[in-house]
Amino acid sequence: MKRITIINGPNLNMLGEREPEIYGTQGFDDYLPLLQEGFRDEAVITYYQTNIEGAIIDLLQEAHRSDIDGIVLNAGGYSHTSVAIRDAIAAIRPPVVEVHISNIYAREEFRHHSLLSPVCQGVICGLGLEGYRYAIMNLLHER
Amino acid sequence: MKRITIINGPNLNMLGEREPEIYGTQGFDDYLPLLQEGFRDEAVITYYQTNIEGAIIDLLQEAHRSDIDGIVLNAGGYSHTSVAIRDAIAAIRPPVVEVHISNIYAREEFRHHSLLSPVCQGVICGLGLEGYRYAIMNLLHER
Amino acid sequence: MKRITIINGPNLNMLGEREPEIYGTQGFDDYLPLLQEGFRDEAVITYYQTNIEGAIIDLLQEAHRSDIDGIVLNAGGYSHTSVAIRDAIAAIRPPVVEVHISNIYAREEFRHHSLLSPVCQGVICGLGLEGYRYAIMNLLHER
Amino acid sequence: MKRITIINGPNLNMLGEREPEIYGTQGFDDYLPLLQEGFRDEAVITYYQTNIEGAIIDLLQEAHRSDIDGIVLNAGGYSHTSVAIRDAIAAIRPPVVEVHISNIYAREEFRHHSLLSPVCQGVICGLGLEGYRYAIMNLLHER
Amino acid sequence: MKRITIINGPNLNMLGEREPEIYGTQGFDDYLPLLQEGFRDEAVITYYQTNIEGAIIDLLQEAHRSDIDGIVLNAGGYSHTSVAIRDAIAAIRPPVVEVHISNIYAREEFRHHSLLSPVCQGVICGLGLEGYRYAIMNLLHER
Amino acid sequence: MKRITIINGPNLNMLGEREPEIYGTQGFDDYLPLLQEGFRDEAVITYYQTNIEGAIIDLLQEAHRSDIDGIVLNAGGYSHTSVAIRDAIAAIRPPVVEVHISNIYAREEFRHHSLLSPVCQGVICGLGLEGYRYAIMNLLHER
Amino acid sequence: MKRITIINGPNLNMLGEREPEIYGTQGFDDYLPLLQEGFRDEAVITYYQTNIEGAIIDLLQEAHRSDIDGIVLNAGGYSHTSVAIRDAIAAIRPPVVEVHISNIYAREEFRHHSLLSPVCQGVICGLGLEGYRYAIMNLLHER
Amino acid sequence: MKRITIINGPNLNMLGEREPEIYGTQGFDDYLPLLQEGFRDEAVITYYQTNIEGAIIDLLQEAHRSDIDGIVLNAGGYSHTSVAIRDAIAAIRPPVVEVHISNIYAREEFRHHSLLSPVCQGVICGLGLEGYRYAIMNLLHER
Amino acid sequence: MKRITIINGPNLNMLGEREPEIYGTQGFDDYLPLLQEGFRDEAVITYYQTNIEGAIIDLLQEAHRSDIDGIVLNAGGYSHTSVAIRDAIAAIRPPVVEVHISNIYAREEFRHHSLLSPVCQGVICGLGLEGYRYAIMNLLHER
Amino acid sequence: MKRITIINGPNLNMLGEREPEIYGTQGFDDYLPLLQEGFRDEAVITYYQTNIEGAIIDLLQEAHRSDIDGIVLNAGGYSHTSVAIRDAIAAIRPPVVEVHISNIYAREEFRHHSLLSPVCQGVICGLGLEGYRYAIMNLLHER
Amino acid sequence: MKRITIINGPNLNMLGEREPEIYGTQGFDDYLPLLQEGFRDEAVITYYQTNIEGAIIDLLQEAHRSDIDGIVLNAGGYSHTSVAIRDAIAAIRPPVVEVHISNIYAREEFRHHSLLSPVCQGVICGLGLEGYRYAIMNLLHER
Amino acid sequence: MKRITIINGPNLNMLGEREPEIYGTQGFDDYLPLLQEGFRDEAVITYYQTNIEGAIIDLLQEAHRSDIDGIVLNAGGYSHTSVAIRDAIAAIRPPVVEVHISNIYAREEFRHHSLLSPVCQGVICGLGLEGYRYAIMNLLHER
Repeated sequence: MKRITIINGPNLNMLGEREPEIYGTQGFDDYLPLLQEGFRDEAVITYYQTNIEGAIIDLLQEAHRSDIDGIVLNAGGYSHTSVAIRDAIAAIRPPVVEVHISNIYAREEFRHHSLLSPVCQGVICGLGLEGYRYAIMNLLHER
Repeated sequence: MKRITIINGPNLNMLGEREPEIYGTQGFDDYLPLLQEGFRDEAVITYYQTNIEGAIIDLLQEAHRSDIDGIVLNAGGYSHTSVAIRDAIAAIRPPVVEVHISNIYAREEFRHHSLLSPVCQGVICGLGLEGYRYAIMNLLHER
Repeated sequence: MKRITIINGPNLNMLGEREPEIYGTQGFDDYLPLLQEGFRDEAVITYYQTNIEGAIIDLLQEAHRSDIDGIVLNAGGYSHTSVAIRDAIAAIRPPVVEVHISNIYAREEFRHHSLLSPVCQGVICGLGLEGYRYAIMNLLHER
Repeated sequence: MKRITIINGPNLNMLGEREPEIYGTQGFDDYLPLLQEGFRDEAVITYYQTNIEGAIIDLLQEAHRSDIDGIVLNAGGYSHTSVAIRDAIAAIRPPVVEVHISNIYAREEFRHHSLLSPVCQGVICGLGLEGYRYAIMNLLHER
Repeated sequence: MKRITIINGPNLNMLGEREPEIYGTQGFDDYLPLLQEGFRDEAVITYYQTNIEGAIIDLLQEAHRSDIDGIVLNAGGYSHTSVAIRDAIAAIRPPVVEVHISNIYAREEFRHHSLLSPVCQGVICGLGLEGYRYAIMNLLHER
Repeated sequence: MKRITIINGPNLNMLGEREPEIYGTQGFDDYLPLLQEGFRDEAVITYYQTNIEGAIIDLLQEAHRSDIDGIVLNAGGYSHTSVAIRDAIAAIRPPVVEVHISNIYAREEFRHHSLLSPVCQGVICGLGLEGYRYAIMNLLHER
Repeated sequence: MKRITIINGPNLNMLGEREPEIYGTQGFDDYLPLLQEGFRDEAVITYYQTNIEGAIIDLLQEAHRSDIDGIVLNAGGYSHTSVAIRDAIAAIRPPVVEVHISNIYAREEFRHHSLLSPVCQGVICGLGLEGYRYAIMNLLHER
Repeated sequence: MKRITIINGPNLNMLGEREPEIYGTQGFDDYLPLLQEGFRDEAVITYYQTNIEGAIIDLLQEAHRSDIDGIVLNAGGYSHTSVAIRDAIAAIRPPVVEVHISNIYAREEFRHHSLLSPVCQGVICGLGLEGYRYAIMNLLHER
Repeated sequence: MKRITIINGPNLNMLGEREPEIYGTQGFDDYLPLLQEGFRDEAVITYYQTNIEGAIIDLLQEAHRSDIDGIVLNAGGYSHTSVAIRDAIAAIRPPVVEVHISNIYAREEFRHHSLLSPVCQGVICGLGLEGYRYAIMNLLHER
Repeated sequence: MKRITIINGPNLNMLGEREPEIYGTQGFDDYLPLLQEGFRDEAVITYYQTNIEGAIIDLLQEAHRSDIDGIVLNAGGYSHTSVAIRDAIAAIRPPVVEVHISNIYAREEFRHHSLLSPVCQGVICGLGLEGYRYAIMNLLHER
Repeated sequence: MKRITIINGPNLNMLGEREPEIYGTQGFDDYLPLLQEGFRDEAVITYYQTNIEGAIIDLLQEAHRSDIDGIVLNAGGYSHTSVAIRDAIAAIRPPVVEVHISNIYAREEFRHHSLLSPVCQGVICGLGLEGYRYAIMNLLHER
Repeated sequence: MKRITIINGPNLNMLGEREPEIYGTQGFDDYLPLLQEGFRDEAVITYYQTNIEGAIIDLLQEAHRSDIDGIVLNAGGYSHTSVAIRDAIAAIRPPVVEVHISNIYAREEFRHHSLLSPVCQGVICGLGLEGYRYAIMNLLHER
């Protein structure tokens, strides 16, 4: 059994009620059990959400210290501005896959560039909540 | 009676002692009672200050959940850099009016652009502490 | 009694019939008497509208020569392009408050930057016609 | 019979004597009767020229108020700098076709971008004085 | 009788079924006979469409070699990116008029600049399929 | 049974022998049967590779005409420069998922921006050949 | 006797009372007679001031039509923004020398670039009111 | 005895184990006692580390309130993005010396610019952990 | 005997008749035999010309597969825009020397930058047709 | 009697034979005696020319040390690139007037910006060799 | 005993008399003996100053050839513009520490970027003349 | 016999010992005799090296005055920054071929642009020391 950590950043606790034409109508709390069920033979999946940039760094470092096998990170709005989270990803051992629920390249200009992508293993965006599933599949089976 | 939330961001707790030639000599704690008094027949005004970006997001989401009628936001230095706060404003129901005490357009280049303005109802800047009063007037009477 | 001059720039004579989803359905001619009435004990309010950039400069200089106490300026499209109006504002004694009816920061990129803002006392934008009222309040009571 | 207004902006009164290698040797006053003759069964064509930016806005608004069917606009040098004229075009009902006699894209960098094009129905440039004819054809027969 | 070549670039074979709110509902195959009919006393009009950038260059060179009198070119998406087509236009003898069916200046930023315009005789855009007619008129009668 | 088309662009025929430290050592021809096998109960998967930009457009249009259910597109180097392919994606009915084998955001600056992403359903990058599998999963099960 | 026209643009009628630390304390009306006196044997000097961009163009064209020998132009704030005045200078026969009283290169960034300089004979800036004298000397004796 | 505060920002708690080819192999916890020992006759040195941007602001304000004599700040990734920390430094009385362990100018482009440098007393970078020592020397002996 | 491939891109088939003031009056077909003659003891020189971007990629890959010793590439207008050709050069084994007949740095801004140069062995430009000779000399004797 | 130093920078020793269509046909050695003669009652004029950037700095410092009353500087190509000469001008006491013989604003883009202008008293350009005369007049009589 | 070379670039010979509000009132000639005294047991310190860019390169190469142990370089205005000095630093063996007396990041935009920093061991700026001391300490004790 | 001058700029005297992975291990002093030998029947080749920008200008002017037939110039780091050397090349009669030993386009961004290339006859780069040979061949035989 591998151990996977999902970290959701700012405003992702509002999924389902926030701008549903962009983010869909399903909350992450409803989706998480389905995800855990789907991987029950392969992985233990832990989930965190926080609105605080530094707390995401704390969580990434914690995953490193407790030898997590892989991290799925949706840093929300911090993806586009946070050198500090980027540094944290580069500083830790577990591979990180970046996920965005919406297609950030089809939205405002300032969302087209993620500071985190260059230090992540890969990026999935615009594939809805299922993006989290593919990210975990990749962390479990690839490389 | 309507309910209004004022949220002040980083360094606004130092108002009155911080760069008085830019921000004036009056602290917000002295100004708040005058403001509350002026609107006592129309609105209950709640006030928060925090230096932490994510805590501003928490406060915006909380105002949404408790069905506040309007928000006055001075996000200080985060105004120019925070996609995450912008996302929070776009995600919530209550209208937000952005206030800056000083005229940010008369200062350094990097202060001329606020990421928050496009998702706020409007912007007041350079009119001193009275800007908060006009913002509340607007939230109570307009639209 | 103080004396206040309101100067509206290009296309503001079409308010009410022009792009109502942006500018609302009320013309300035209907709004002006309400405004004058609201300040009748405090200020004499004079109003001008012109589509000509140089005529706005003439009006600003005239306000200076006749010792007006404050100016509310909505320079419309010239706000984004006119160094000459900016120079006029910097050259005169009465303080100027810049007003925009719509939220210019939520519109096209080229509207996000006003050449006039740095030499005005402050800026109000996106608060509809009521922005003129707050500007006059500020000119009468602040500083 | 439809009614069409042609508005020529700054320096177009010097056509024929001004930089003939760029603008040709025919003045607009000589060309206008030919144009009017060509459309005499379909349209009444009125012509204005002014060097003043704000006067172009006045003319555009006047065409709107008198229910003109279409406008051919060559705003000359103002095409590249005038947000105010752009706003006027967006504010009025009659469709506007933008015409440039010379190929502005083959000239200085600052002529490659017209602020007016996005709010016009279409653009014709580099086809000489005949561009005015095609613009009128389009206003009479298209859409 | 003069000889005119019309060259349509990528995706213009989908005209009529592709994004009709931008490009209209008429296919070019339906429009071409009308166009040929309109000029039957003046010109033989040949038509080509290809999705391949280099094939457009081949066609331009072929028109040069067979002494065509004029070319109407709508290079579609290649207009904004192709130095190679620009070089071909500059290398050949027959004049080229650039046509765009939609108003490219009212669309995405990257469509506002055509690399081809500076080496064409002129540009017509946003006037629908009729733009092709004006282009041919210009090639037959001007210069 | 659904029908899926995979289109690989320039140089992807050299997969396995080309810069293996970036693209891995497995050729697409070896990977394709595994992919087809994995989805044999759900989809018929057709595969094309071409080095020619316009041929990719032809393939996209063909998929549209033959009512394919979904397209996986790796346009290689054309991803960063082709307005014409972007237009083709926008012009057709079947949804397109963009795949990049390597993490393009961790490579040269000019690879960080794909012109295609805004008109695709989503983007997967840096997850190796498995990215194709996730793209097909998404086309079969999502939306 | 040669004939010279001096044209002063916006806000130069406020010279002497406007920002004296930048522009000095002498008004142009006081300076003009000294200037005329200094050249009384060589030139008739006519002087105009206007705040209206288009009126400067009218004056330039008028100087052309009445065969003036040279023009000294201080277009103030329009220097940095007016393609239309630039076109007028290029369209007329008399040479133009551009004068700025203050050193525009030592001031705000947007004043460092004059659109007019490339089509003027030369530029004098930062040498105070005496710059007008040198400009006239140059128009009388050079070339 | 003077009082000095050292504030380390995000990821500096991982010093020694994080990217040792850039940051070296010594943790700050090992280095701090040596530093304190070296200045034991001159200064009491207090040390804080936090991953949270707002907490750095809290610490800077606290140093101000408790009349600390000088601050050594390594804000890590926030150096390049935080207007809010910059405002805090400008708002407080104690001088701040900015330290970076690695040579940020020899790394990625986005690390070349620190928003904090202009409001600090000075900057030391690329001199390893010894940079902290020089910073303290400067705060004790200079000015 | 070594084997060298020369690949000429778009419009180079028009050499001699195309803009002779830039490219000279000699066609490549006349020059090729001289070149082959000059190296007849050292190399077999094969020559291709195509206007199609993807066909250049095909040729580069073919040269790789047939173990050619070196390639001289003049990609014409594609040099400035083609990531796909760049990728092909990086993907193949034979060294490539880039040649331009004219001095591209003395021409339009958009010709100053070649996407291909960084992955070629070297660049020769502005030395006319003889540049091909030097390129072959370099491929035969250097490294 | 005042003392004036003229410093000419790189390539100005070639005046008269270098690009005469830009710089005229008169060498500075022929012009200097005329200049000295014209001011013989007012000033001693010393002249230096050097191609070496640092030698210009030496000359500026020397003028400062020997209490020269004013400097006329034509730094040629170094005007556009030399922070070091700018620093020297700012460091010395005598005022400096910058002169350019040709109209640098009518030439290549990179000549439009002089790093020296902001720290000089004023700038004269495009007025030919007579520009030196006006500069000396200004140094003798102004301020 | 180690051997250290200090190289000061343009205008640093004017230290103490040049813009004292930026650079202080102490000349380097007064400071040097104190510096030499402070390190008399550890290092022989040689000092050079020159205004000539190429002479700095000569000195750097000379230090390399005579096996100096470390170099302290304050290249003044050349820091921001000299690729040639940068190349010299990269070409030589002794490590170089870059020193600036003033805080260059708090001054004009063009001073914020040093071309030399990326190839130096580290940078000290804004700490006054003591910056030289820390640089020598670092060269003697670090790495 | 023709006369050719080779001018090498800064740091090229360190060839062979400087960054050999970029510049190779052969010094220019070893290479020069081979070069002279190769052309002994055709040309007298003179060689200069200097680290001083202005001295390169002196050498270029000297070559002009002594009627040299052609110049090979490798201005090293000055290639990217020197308007003054560019002006010298444009001012002199002998043609100049620019040579770079390494492929500057494969190195740092600031090396991709040479200010000198547009006024040289041509450019050779990345072909090692043999580039000098091809440059001389071109100067002797071409044009």
